[in-house]
Amino acid sequence: AFFLREQGIDAIPFGFFGKPEDISTEGVDFAFSLGGDGTVLYAARLLDNLGVPILAVNLGNFGFLTEISSCEWKEVFEGYRQGGLGLSRRVMLKVIVERGGKRIMTFSGLNDAVISANGMSKVVELDLRLNHNELGSYRADGVIVATPTGSTAYSVAAGGPILDPEMEALIINPICPFTLSNRPLVVSGNDVAQINVKKDQRTDIILSIDGQEVFPLQGGDLVFFEKSHSKALLVRSDRRNFFEVLRSKLNWSGGSDA
Amino acid sequence: AFFLREQGIDAIPFGFFGKPEDISTEGVDFAFSLGGDGTVLYAARLLDNLGVPILAVNLGNFGFLTEISSCEWKEVFEGYRQGGLGLSRRVMLKVIVERGGKRIMTFSGLNDAVISANGMSKVVELDLRLNHNELGSYRADGVIVATPTGSTAYSVAAGGPILDPEMEALIINPICPFTLSNRPLVVSGNDVAQINVKKDQRTDIILSIDGQEVFPLQGGDLVFFEKSHSKALLVRSDRRNFFEVLRSKLNWSGGSDA
Amino acid sequence: AFFLREQGIDAIPFGFFGKPEDISTEGVDFAFSLGGDGTVLYAARLLDNLGVPILAVNLGNFGFLTEISSCEWKEVFEGYRQGGLGLSRRVMLKVIVERGGKRIMTFSGLNDAVISANGMSKVVELDLRLNHNELGSYRADGVIVATPTGSTAYSVAAGGPILDPEMEALIINPICPFTLSNRPLVVSGNDVAQINVKKDQRTDIILSIDGQEVFPLQGGDLVFFEKSHSKALLVRSDRRNFFEVLRSKLNWSGGSDA
Amino acid sequence: AFFLREQGIDAIPFGFFGKPEDISTEGVDFAFSLGGDGTVLYAARLLDNLGVPILAVNLGNFGFLTEISSCEWKEVFEGYRQGGLGLSRRVMLKVIVERGGKRIMTFSGLNDAVISANGMSKVVELDLRLNHNELGSYRADGVIVATPTGSTAYSVAAGGPILDPEMEALIINPICPFTLSNRPLVVSGNDVAQINVKKDQRTDIILSIDGQEVFPLQGGDLVFFEKSHSKALLVRSDRRNFFEVLRSKLNWSGGSDA
Repeated sequence: AFFLREQGIDAIPFGFFGKPEDISTEGVDFAFSLGGDGTVLYAARLLDNLGVPILAVNLGNFGFLTEISSCEWKEVFEGYRQGGLGLSRRVMLKVIVERGGKRIMTFSGLNDAVISANGMSKVVELDLRLNHNELGSYRADGVIVATPTGSTAYSVAAGGPILDPEMEALIINPICPFTLSNRPLVVSGNDVAQINVKKDQRTDIILSIDGQEVFPLQGGDLVFFEKSHSKALLVRSDRRNFFEVLRSKLNWSGGSDA
Repeated sequence: AFFLREQGIDAIPFGFFGKPEDISTEGVDFAFSLGGDGTVLYAARLLDNLGVPILAVNLGNFGFLTEISSCEWKEVFEGYRQGGLGLSRRVMLKVIVERGGKRIMTFSGLNDAVISANGMSKVVELDLRLNHNELGSYRADGVIVATPTGSTAYSVAAGGPILDPEMEALIINPICPFTLSNRPLVVSGNDVAQINVKKDQRTDIILSIDGQEVFPLQGGDLVFFEKSHSKALLVRSDRRNFFEVLRSKLNWSGGSDA
Repeated sequence: AFFLREQGIDAIPFGFFGKPEDISTEGVDFAFSLGGDGTVLYAARLLDNLGVPILAVNLGNFGFLTEISSCEWKEVFEGYRQGGLGLSRRVMLKVIVERGGKRIMTFSGLNDAVISANGMSKVVELDLRLNHNELGSYRADGVIVATPTGSTAYSVAAGGPILDPEMEALIINPICPFTLSNRPLVVSGNDVAQINVKKDQRTDIILSIDGQEVFPLQGGDLVFFEKSHSKALLVRSDRRNFFEVLRSKLNWSGGSDA
Repeated sequence: AFFLREQGIDAIPFGFFGKPEDISTEGVDFAFSLGGDGTVLYAARLLDNLGVPILAVNLGNFGFLTEISSCEWKEVFEGYRQGGLGLSRRVMLKVIVERGGKRIMTFSGLNDAVISANGMSKVVELDLRLNHNELGSYRADGVIVATPTGSTAYSVAAGGPILDPEMEALIINPICPFTLSNRPLVVSGNDVAQINVKKDQRTDIILSIDGQEVFPLQGGDLVFFEKSHSKALLVRSDRRNFFEVLRSKLNWSGGSDA
């Protein structure tokens, strides 16, 4: 903040300690995220719809969303202000919960939304529709709907493909489905996915956004997933690209050295 | 029971309603399991070490362990008594929990043992050893150790291979591991797998046996998995074989008809 | 053809018997494909860039591209002419081969392009770049670059995800890569993938387009893959949707009935 | 050889240059394999049934079967002779081809046997039986039957599990099957798998043993796969264990460091 004030820029520090605070985001032109990937996820949801660029500085290990180290940030910030570095525009996910015919909640997320059990019994029963077409029923530990940014988060652990982080698409990926014949689906940014929570489940069911916000669902709830109208804007570094991070974080190899 | 008494056979009916009762298993020579696969799992654990054959009659849909319908059971029972039908001998899993250097619990299971989170945060950190050799650390939703019988249960949903149900082996299969480079392991019936629960986990961790018994673990616990000395003995039907059930229950196809 | 002439429409029949003929496609306004999926693939490549709608009639079993049976085609054709039925617009793939700095071949495909060995030794060594960024080296049986339409063809057999057939994207999917740490990639329709065939391979290497056209590659060749400027236009039936075909052809289930 | 003669040991050098030579293996008590994994595969097949231990020295990079470097071999050899180092006993695969009711060929292999196409069209149609039970039909690029030793070779590239290299089992793993609903099978060392090559295939079909020996199959051929009566005996090093090699060669991680 000291450096920024010297430059004649107002800075409002705030923190994210597990739970979001109510923060006025009015008049914010630019945001720094200081922490890990989780801090960026929180900042992106907080600043959704505002068109505010985020410069994500990692304070620990670099991550998929935090390629810029604390030694590099000044240089990257200057590079961005002078127009030399662009913005990475990332699809955000909009999630709407309908209960008894009424929209009761709306969420936005940068990585993913997950419907799963909250309890010992893990199996949930969900019906999937895409643009009103029935796709089938899942008996599974849950379903992940992920953005391209989220393709390297929980979805990849559930066997999902890796998406170009700037493309317009969503992944629909069941978690441990009780069938041999399933695959992750990748749908267009114009598609609307719908998951109907069947009645009489054996377990409590929750909706998690970016692994940070949790909302309890009920049997009969309808949950809609679509691309948000606005995007997350992340300041790009020219130091690392996506696949270098992939190699480092997830042990990616395009092939072995053998 | 009526039919059995006519044959001069004593029968002791008992039930399994979610929770096991304390039942004297002394002097039992033969067991009928009336219900679904879950009832057989319970019976197999109850009768572990006793060498008692189980005839598993399904009262609903047939399952992997309950191939015999309520119309067929008399015929199968007669066939078994007259020696025409054999027993399917199934590896059971022995699970030992050590805490502070002491053995605090021992379980046996017919399908699997699962170490996983019990709460919103799902990621657990576990170290795996096989016969004292370090195999690596898992950051995952959990780890399944399954018998061949359990290869078609939770393990298959987590991407595991299908094992000949009568072979001597165990599967070690992580659930949603946060890496690209992992595979299910299949080890010999003579191997001992060990999972060390790392300290300072972000979530409560539980051990589940056959999805029916649950035991809370603590950071620092060591859990050992090996083949049990005794086997589950299931009376075979000659009506259906394993792969017919596989086709029916899990949508198996050796290939499409296309 | 008889029915069409009655309607005052000129019809030029031609055949596809394994090898393409040279056919004048000038002045063609509408095409019928009579056969299986393979016939549609051929027609789509032949008519690329011409904006000609294709009505794909299956003469055998229906397929992913041939949902319309020979009993239904008149009705569908009428429905299309009267504007009641739309067109499914499908991304086509453009493949360019460069050798010694010169563009020597250009192909278009509706399903996929595959670089693989042609011989006993199956392993090939390929370098992958995306928009000039190095992604890594593959030691594999080959690499598939597929359109969304092709996501249910060879790519799905190689473990690929299923894509909404009308979305703008390409899949880059290695065949049997010799590493544990790989995943199919899904990239935007604006991305350009590049595969460099390494020198000194142990086997002949071929490029196959839609499994129908084959071109021999040499060590040192560069192969570029991108979205074609034009799309294949397939007349839609209202009888079956994509996921019904998926269920029927690939044994898809959104979950088991178990 | 010089060092061995000093020790009063006769040594017969011979080479493996792509094609096996006819070599008298009579009176051989101990074999050194100097080269890579391929050389060990050749030596193991040559010495099948003879109970001859193999000390596998790698002349290049170490591999799954060649953990011992050229600097270490004397020390390992001494260690073995003095009884300090044991033998790793590995299941070998026996493959029998029947044509027109007659056994026409028998092979043994240390890694795997693969039935696949030899030509441009890659899809083959195969029926699988296990101990005379029908398991289904494969439409696939081929089928791999692998030993535990071979679980880290071609089978792992085709999505197979990793097996304890000393266990008694075989893997049956289709290559790119045209269905969503398939999984690798792991069967007991007592099981006999049978693959029937359907008639009227669109392509030539070959059987490959350890990727080194090739035999042309015909429609109607029956191919049987079972555990060989003898085992390959590999001198163990105490320097590296299996999972260290796995990590190095296949980028294994029990979990990411993220």
